[in-house]
Amino acid sequence: MTFQAPELNAIPTQQGDLDDELSLALQAVEQRMFDVVDSQVDVLRDASRHIISAGGKRIRPRLALLSYAALGGTQFDDVIAVAAALELLHTASVVHDDINDHGVLRRGRPSVNALWGRTFALLTGDYIFTKVYELVAPLGSEMNIVLAQATTALVEGETLQAAAVKNRQFTREVYYRIIGLKTAELFRAATLLGARAAGATDSETDALAEYGFNIGLAFQIIDDVLDVVGSPEQLGKTSGIDIEQGRGFASAYETKPATNGHTIEAADPMVSIREHVLNGDALREAYHQAHHFVQTALDQIRFLPDSPAKDELFALANSVIERSA
Amino acid sequence: MTFQAPELNAIPTQQGDLDDELSLALQAVEQRMFDVVDSQVDVLRDASRHIISAGGKRIRPRLALLSYAALGGTQFDDVIAVAAALELLHTASVVHDDINDHGVLRRGRPSVNALWGRTFALLTGDYIFTKVYELVAPLGSEMNIVLAQATTALVEGETLQAAAVKNRQFTREVYYRIIGLKTAELFRAATLLGARAAGATDSETDALAEYGFNIGLAFQIIDDVLDVVGSPEQLGKTSGIDIEQGRGFASAYETKPATNGHTIEAADPMVSIREHVLNGDALREAYHQAHHFVQTALDQIRFLPDSPAKDELFALANSVIERSA
Repeated sequence: MTFQAPELNAIPTQQGDLDDELSLALQAVEQRMFDVVDSQVDVLRDASRHIISAGGKRIRPRLALLSYAALGGTQFDDVIAVAAALELLHTASVVHDDINDHGVLRRGRPSVNALWGRTFALLTGDYIFTKVYELVAPLGSEMNIVLAQATTALVEGETLQAAAVKNRQFTREVYYRIIGLKTAELFRAATLLGARAAGATDSETDALAEYGFNIGLAFQIIDDVLDVVGSPEQLGKTSGIDIEQGRGFASAYETKPATNGHTIEAADPMVSIREHVLNGDALREAYHQAHHFVQTALDQIRFLPDSPAKDELFALANSVIERSA
Repeated sequence: MTFQAPELNAIPTQQGDLDDELSLALQAVEQRMFDVVDSQVDVLRDASRHIISAGGKRIRPRLALLSYAALGGTQFDDVIAVAAALELLHTASVVHDDINDHGVLRRGRPSVNALWGRTFALLTGDYIFTKVYELVAPLGSEMNIVLAQATTALVEGETLQAAAVKNRQFTREVYYRIIGLKTAELFRAATLLGARAAGATDSETDALAEYGFNIGLAFQIIDDVLDVVGSPEQLGKTSGIDIEQGRGFASAYETKPATNGHTIEAADPMVSIREHVLNGDALREAYHQAHHFVQTALDQIRFLPDSPAKDELFALANSVIERSA
């Protein structure tokens, strides 16, 4: 897989032109990620590029780029490194998640863990985490502090999730704390950093940050729904892990006593809970909550001057709920 | 375990006084590490403090502090955060190493892996890595770039080691590349950052950096020797892992064909190789090489004006070879 470095132009004010320029910017993000993991140690380079080139929705880079443009940024070049760092941070966490969850499929490919084994997957995740900081180190203290805080939140969210499952304390309250930390804080960082790079005021930056956080909550709820109702083929990753582990939206909203692999009585707990969720209130409640968070997000940015980028932020928010993968 | 925040004074010019002030500064480093891992997520806080408060030689903070003082720095306060970050970087790598190596004893205590299990050990290592960047984020781009490069090197060194063992390519050349990356680059970063914090010139900084790198090579060689000849009680960590895995100085200098767990014929390969090393040339060669690197290190800093801190850098270099734990 090779990339051609795209020539980025000034951000246009017409919708069709924005799409073109955004597409070029996302190509530049891909290239930056691909280039920065060019280790002399073959396995680190190969495993990193394996997971990077498998693609993904790139929602975090999109959020950074669109926030930047919506607040008057004029050159996507200014945010390529930050956008790449945000996606790599997510990618590193995915590589480590697949170790802990024994996930064998990721983005439609075998996981790093499945192909290279646990030791190399752990080191590849560490390596990609490091590249996040290599990318943002030259960009000044604020960018670095925001990224470090988002990383801390991400790791805390993953840990809280594992601890809540282990201690059988997977309540709704804990669930919202988990998804705030493990997902929404990084979405917040994406929109915040995009806004800052555009030179936005504090109040504009705060608004974009709150938009990002709420989109993140909605995104994770739908992710958890898809883990239950989707197939591996559709999602491109191992599905059903949440139910197997007794976590996710369905577990938080179970009307039965808190469930996990040990307490389910059915012959196949996956089938049992899946049917329960599909037939019960949890699915309806999940969409209701996600819709609520999207509306809250949109309310934050209505005051922005109209622009193609603002329209795209609205469209992106709605697509979070409507997606099926 | 609680700390009292020590009051740090100006760095003195008399030897006895330097020892006192260095000791206070190292206490401040301990406190900074302890404070920065104050997560709201219990297991991250507890596991991080478990490994931090188990102690260790703190050689990386010492190198940063002494380099700073030797180049005219006057307030250890200026380098406490960097010194804490250097030690935390090493600590994070140790937590992840113990997952991959199944190390159950570390710094005289059960490893994080042994006490909390693999999932939480992986997340604790990630968490401590993040705290490195939280500590240095406010300190400007150069500090952040140096730390990110040292982290990359560390992860590359660990990976190269695992790959060389797996591919049975553990040659002497590969061995020196490994210890340069996994150990000496972080020592280099320690002395470099200490020098920079003191406002040293480029040539002074380069000299300290080369001193640090060579001390790191010597330190790792002796570490590998101790892994073979030392006991867990003496070292405070699981020993014999290198030989079990077919790596380390002894494996690089084996006169027999490259060895690993699969190819050794003796009833107990540990005993067999250990005796071979103790009776053969490898041990002598190891000390010879370590001594050579220490001399190279000392040659770098002879030109510095005499000071108690310079004397301490000389003493530290020699102690690297003479240590038994």
